[in-house]
Amino acid sequence: MRIHKICILGAGTLGSRVALQFAISGFQVSVYDISQKALDLGHKTMEKILRQLVKAGQLHESQITEIFSRIQFTLDPFEAVEDADFINESVTEEVDIKKKVWKQFGEIAPEKTWFTTNTSYLLPSMFAEESGRPSKFCAFHFHDVFYSRVVDIMPHPGTDPAMILMLEDLGKKLNQVPVLVKKENPGYIFNTMLMALIGAAGKLLTREVGSIEDIDRSWMVNFHMPMGPFGILDSIGLDTAWHVTHKMPDAASQAFAALLKTYLDQGKLGEKSGEGFYTYPNPEYRKENFCQ
Amino acid sequence: MRIHKICILGAGTLGSRVALQFAISGFQVSVYDISQKALDLGHKTMEKILRQLVKAGQLHESQITEIFSRIQFTLDPFEAVEDADFINESVTEEVDIKKKVWKQFGEIAPEKTWFTTNTSYLLPSMFAEESGRPSKFCAFHFHDVFYSRVVDIMPHPGTDPAMILMLEDLGKKLNQVPVLVKKENPGYIFNTMLMALIGAAGKLLTREVGSIEDIDRSWMVNFHMPMGPFGILDSIGLDTAWHVTHKMPDAASQAFAALLKTYLDQGKLGEKSGEGFYTYPNPEYRKENFCQ
Ligand SMILES: NC(=O)c1ccc[n+]([C@@H]2O[C@H](COP(=O)([O-])OP(=O)(O)OC[C@H]3O[C@@H](n4cnc5c(N)ncnc54)[C@H](O)[C@@H]3O)[C@@H](O)[C@H]2O)c1
Ligand SMILES: NC(=O)c1ccc[n+]([C@@H]2O[C@H](COP(=O)([O-])OP(=O)(O)OC[C@H]3O[C@@H](n4cnc5c(N)ncnc54)[C@H](O)[C@@H]3O)[C@@H](O)[C@H]2O)c1
Repeated sequence: MRIHKICILGAGTLGSRVALQFAISGFQVSVYDISQKALDLGHKTMEKILRQLVKAGQLHESQITEIFSRIQFTLDPFEAVEDADFINESVTEEVDIKKKVWKQFGEIAPEKTWFTTNTSYLLPSMFAEESGRPSKFCAFHFHDVFYSRVVDIMPHPGTDPAMILMLEDLGKKLNQVPVLVKKENPGYIFNTMLMALIGAAGKLLTREVGSIEDIDRSWMVNFHMPMGPFGILDSIGLDTAWHVTHKMPDAASQAFAALLKTYLDQGKLGEKSGEGFYTYPNPEYRKENFCQ
Repeated sequence: MRIHKICILGAGTLGSRVALQFAISGFQVSVYDISQKALDLGHKTMEKILRQLVKAGQLHESQITEIFSRIQFTLDPFEAVEDADFINESVTEEVDIKKKVWKQFGEIAPEKTWFTTNTSYLLPSMFAEESGRPSKFCAFHFHDVFYSRVVDIMPHPGTDPAMILMLEDLGKKLNQVPVLVKKENPGYIFNTMLMALIGAAGKLLTREVGSIEDIDRSWMVNFHMPMGPFGILDSIGLDTAWHVTHKMPDAASQAFAALLKTYLDQGKLGEKSGEGFYTYPNPEYRKENFCQ
């Protein structure tokens, strides 16, 4: 199972990061998107990350050209998948889009190609059949690739067990920490725990047990962490959090989803919009006296 | 509201730490317990912590004698409470014991004395009436005082609001970060969130979604933390975790409580017994290759 040529579907936030990490690790990568703008933006994202890695002393300036020489950007699906050993799909998080993409690439990919999806909350069994090769299909889910280096391996019931071993090995080659999610679980392992923490924080807020600041402070001071649940929510995006929360049937989640909605209605999406629970770029919780 | 003389009830794990922090901050402290052994052990605990603080450069060797000169150890309740401005109670976490202690000290304490309890999971309203002065009664709850410096201020409905301001000020003088818990909530703010995280981890384990190690790894690598939920459980004690979990009615908590019980039945209580989810003193999760 020699893996050499990688095809990344989707050049957005995650696709560009995953593609870059493959190239840094010495793989040959093609990045496919339906939008030239997305490809251009993906290229810019990669340049920015590389500059940060050079600044942090993790790469040498002189390696950049070589890394980019291993990456090909394309709007042509046939070119993208030519001779590919491995696909990681990072297209928009919508069932129908992913189904369509997997049907398309299941038909045109070489027989040898392994299929993986980077979906955050959907399940591999939702697209495995569409791809036409369910036994070679598995979730291979990154977090943010560079700061949070976990890669989740989550098979669906039909995944070939040999694929799991291959993915563990590949994850390590990508400087990630592979984690096996033994059965399908929306949110894998980390997001399940994070959502439980955020749900508890939301309940403390909607029940008026504590203020946003005191809830965050409790977490930050006790665990010596740089942010608490509401700071984390601002960085995830309140829209994303609302999408997950408003589908949960329990009363506490519904109350928190309703509160999140009042923020969304005011255009407060978190850090990316300049305001969420805190105001950016200098939120209270990053100030020195916040935890004093 | 000048606070000068402090009376600490209970010289156990927390009582000795709280008493020490008051003395370090310049207060006069009497430590009361019903057991001479507990007082002696409390004295030893304080010596050990002071040596650590000196080693960490937070105190000078020469201050130790002066700090101890401000602490009095006694088995005599009248001596303990003489001229006390403030009581913090850290006796055994049992409703009946705490009720008895508060009835006793409510009768013998000077009129000026403010009453606070350090209970972890009980509520101040459970003993406020027994003390005979509910308006001067509030929870003032420490975490571990030196590493986790949060102090929770949790009034019951009858607490005088002026007392809250006094406690916020006092908390800061004790080098703690005061957090206001606006209404009674078992587990305050931090423990409510921690139990949600631990509950989610327990559910992932009992549903066989992930291994102990992979669940911890997900948390540690994503948040750059030195331990994950099962490492945290080992440090809290599996007995304490079982006491909280087995009272929760939902199926997931019951399943996790049943799993915890199998550990307790084998004498595995966590770090303090040498084994829990991991084996001590060198648990897997502290090894360098655990997150690689
Ligand atoms: N953003 C995160 O933090 C994060 C983390 C882990 C995983 N993910 C997952 O990665 C996937 C992508 O998320 P994102 O944040 O990068 O989204 P994004 O919106 O930034 O990027 C999605 C890209 O997919 C492209 N696309 C849409 N339809 C396509 C098609 N038919 N063929 C090819 N490309 C197509 C879009 O043009 C866009 O560039 C999602 O499944 C998401 O759940 C996201
Ligand atoms: N251990 C923790 O991590 C922690 C953290 C925060 C708060 N607390 C709370 O602090 C309190 C004490 O916990 P601990 O861990 O120190 O327990 P512990 O068992 O170490 O100490 C309890 C002490 O209370 C003494 N005691 C019992 N009955 C008494 C009485 N009638 N009068 C005076 N003293 C009496 C015992 O002799 C013992 O020394 C509990 O309410 C607990 O919930 C504990």
